[in-house]
Amino acid sequence: MPTRRTFLAAAAAAPIAPKAAGTRGELPTPALLLDLDAFNANLDKMAAHLKKQGRAFRPHAKTHKCPEIARRLLKAGAVGACAAKISEAEALAAGGVTGLLLTSAMIGRDRIRRAIGLARRRPETMFSVDDARNVRDLNDAAGAARLKLNLAIDLLVGNRTGIEPGAPAAELARLIAKLPNVKLAGLQAYANNAAHVIGFEARRSFSRAAMARAVETRRLIEKSGIACPLVTGGSTGTYNIDSQIDGVTELQPGSFIFMDIDYNRIGGADGAVYRDFRNALTVLTTVISKPSKDAAIVDGGFKSFSTDKPFPPETKNLAGVTYAWAGDEHGKLTAAQGPVPVELGDRVEFIVPHCDPTVNLYDSIYVMKGEAVEAVWPITARGKSQ
Amino acid sequence: MPTRRTFLAAAAAAPIAPKAAGTRGELPTPALLLDLDAFNANLDKMAAHLKKQGRAFRPHAKTHKCPEIARRLLKAGAVGACAAKISEAEALAAGGVTGLLLTSAMIGRDRIRRAIGLARRRPETMFSVDDARNVRDLNDAAGAARLKLNLAIDLLVGNRTGIEPGAPAAELARLIAKLPNVKLAGLQAYANNAAHVIGFEARRSFSRAAMARAVETRRLIEKSGIACPLVTGGSTGTYNIDSQIDGVTELQPGSFIFMDIDYNRIGGADGAVYRDFRNALTVLTTVISKPSKDAAIVDGGFKSFSTDKPFPPETKNLAGVTYAWAGDEHGKLTAAQGPVPVELGDRVEFIVPHCDPTVNLYDSIYVMKGEAVEAVWPITARGKSQ
Repeated sequence: MPTRRTFLAAAAAAPIAPKAAGTRGELPTPALLLDLDAFNANLDKMAAHLKKQGRAFRPHAKTHKCPEIARRLLKAGAVGACAAKISEAEALAAGGVTGLLLTSAMIGRDRIRRAIGLARRRPETMFSVDDARNVRDLNDAAGAARLKLNLAIDLLVGNRTGIEPGAPAAELARLIAKLPNVKLAGLQAYANNAAHVIGFEARRSFSRAAMARAVETRRLIEKSGIACPLVTGGSTGTYNIDSQIDGVTELQPGSFIFMDIDYNRIGGADGAVYRDFRNALTVLTTVISKPSKDAAIVDGGFKSFSTDKPFPPETKNLAGVTYAWAGDEHGKLTAAQGPVPVELGDRVEFIVPHCDPTVNLYDSIYVMKGEAVEAVWPITARGKSQ
Repeated sequence: MPTRRTFLAAAAAAPIAPKAAGTRGELPTPALLLDLDAFNANLDKMAAHLKKQGRAFRPHAKTHKCPEIARRLLKAGAVGACAAKISEAEALAAGGVTGLLLTSAMIGRDRIRRAIGLARRRPETMFSVDDARNVRDLNDAAGAARLKLNLAIDLLVGNRTGIEPGAPAAELARLIAKLPNVKLAGLQAYANNAAHVIGFEARRSFSRAAMARAVETRRLIEKSGIACPLVTGGSTGTYNIDSQIDGVTELQPGSFIFMDIDYNRIGGADGAVYRDFRNALTVLTTVISKPSKDAAIVDGGFKSFSTDKPFPPETKNLAGVTYAWAGDEHGKLTAAQGPVPVELGDRVEFIVPHCDPTVNLYDSIYVMKGEAVEAVWPITARGKSQ
């Protein structure tokens, strides 16, 4: 029996890692669950595919924010991990993850200071740049710290960040080559708008056009005598497209380890539903109110699921039952016909609309082997968006 | 003045708090900011209004999840705090917060065990119930622990959780009165669907009809000789409506301390925009890429803002500039006409679409006094949705 003092301390210490014990039925809900068999199958499939295609594999950690998962990916053959932000990268590095590529630019004094700190601890780290002044700032900071920073030029091959491919990028490469404390590692070429193009053929055309600009830019840079070893990009949606484009040296998919409804909807090479990878990630809830025969309320709402997509979570094992948002902490279940077939206290499990922002709501993930909780992995970089 | 016990509890809750120092321009972004003057004005206005109307004030902590804020509300005259979930309540109690009302039912063995633990430490805590079997389970658990639990009957006056008002609720009250280890504290009557009804008059009619059912149920219960001291409900949208309904004894608004776009849109008693309370909560971002003259990319996306509402964040001080979602970590700014007037490294601050789920993304809140960071308050119950 805990004393009052140990209880207070425990309650306050925000269970960064709940004990691994018990079964699905005993977990406090809402809980984030990982099906270990499905996760391992996803990981093995992607690693085998990229090995066969002769491409390096640097999965994006913004999806999972979990050092344990990044380490497992390294063990499966990944050359490192991508990180979206410096705070995310710091958490991964502290968790033993090597080969980091920062996919967003280090803008501002605080970020540059932290980038230098990370490069000191992990000299192989690469940082994305898309602006000449920022390159000079990084060069100056690296000089002051007596370091040499590896830079990847972020290309605007999608519609978000980056410098125009072609001449503008080549000019930035020449600046990097000229400065003493930075070194060109390659091109960061993520076509954010290709990942979720619906229909495999449409997605293939779209991604090929985007990545062709990256490959061409690399050629342009190397023609001027500057080495540009890396062209990195791609997503779970385009892994089997980009891995067949000459000149794309490595892929950085993230979501394939978990999958979500959003990716299921884009269609696969073999059909209308994308099923190359298994749905390994779920949110477990409990029915906490039955206000009528026709409705049941579960204990997960806006704070337990991503809400950036227009479609709600889907029940995993309850055919004909639909979830509707019912506020910050609640969801409402109804059946296509007649009473909703659940009772107070029943557990209802959901596939999530979008995996990345869902994971970012939880401090840890329960790793399930069938009904048993095999482990609890802390999501150390949760909330680390800085 | 905190007692030694509440002080110890607060000390135990000792945050992993970033140091309070520096200015707005130096903060790592994305950052959650609180304008202290606006927050204090909001708090004083609500407290004064409810005092004048003779209603108790038990603000909902699901909005802020921050013991420091709950303690300030208590100091301003609140009788306690509402909590949506047991894990949220535990974090508040550990932070020295008293007078807790759990607004969701304690369904399941884990929740009942924790409810008993909380009641032992804070005997004044009230727990919501809407089901006879759950009442019996709580009674049994309380008996085994030699405690008497305070129960509030959760009424279905909205469209979410609760038991039907009138006869079904009165029957549940009789069960509670009959059992030895539970006691009726009153009625939890939250009309979730009233809070955001657009237009003051429409909202007034809606909320009056909903709350009338609660007041009538209380009369029915008391007619059978059972004391039912409390009728608690209301929201930031209905505070000046429900506080004028005879028989509503206390209000539990949450969002008024922060405000958000969603509440601004519902209209006030004096106009089309609801401005009874000031927008005290913002998210600060940094421009990290300018892919073209017509667009700028900031470092906040789905992981830095609530996304459950169909409208995006609004810039605080950049007239004519619009934010559009650009993924998990990015937002895109464009101007109504011509180039977007920001440069790399510029700070851009946003009013959030919906305050509660936005706060739930951050570990701490920077408390601003003008440009200076006055304090950093840990959001101890962040992610505590269990």
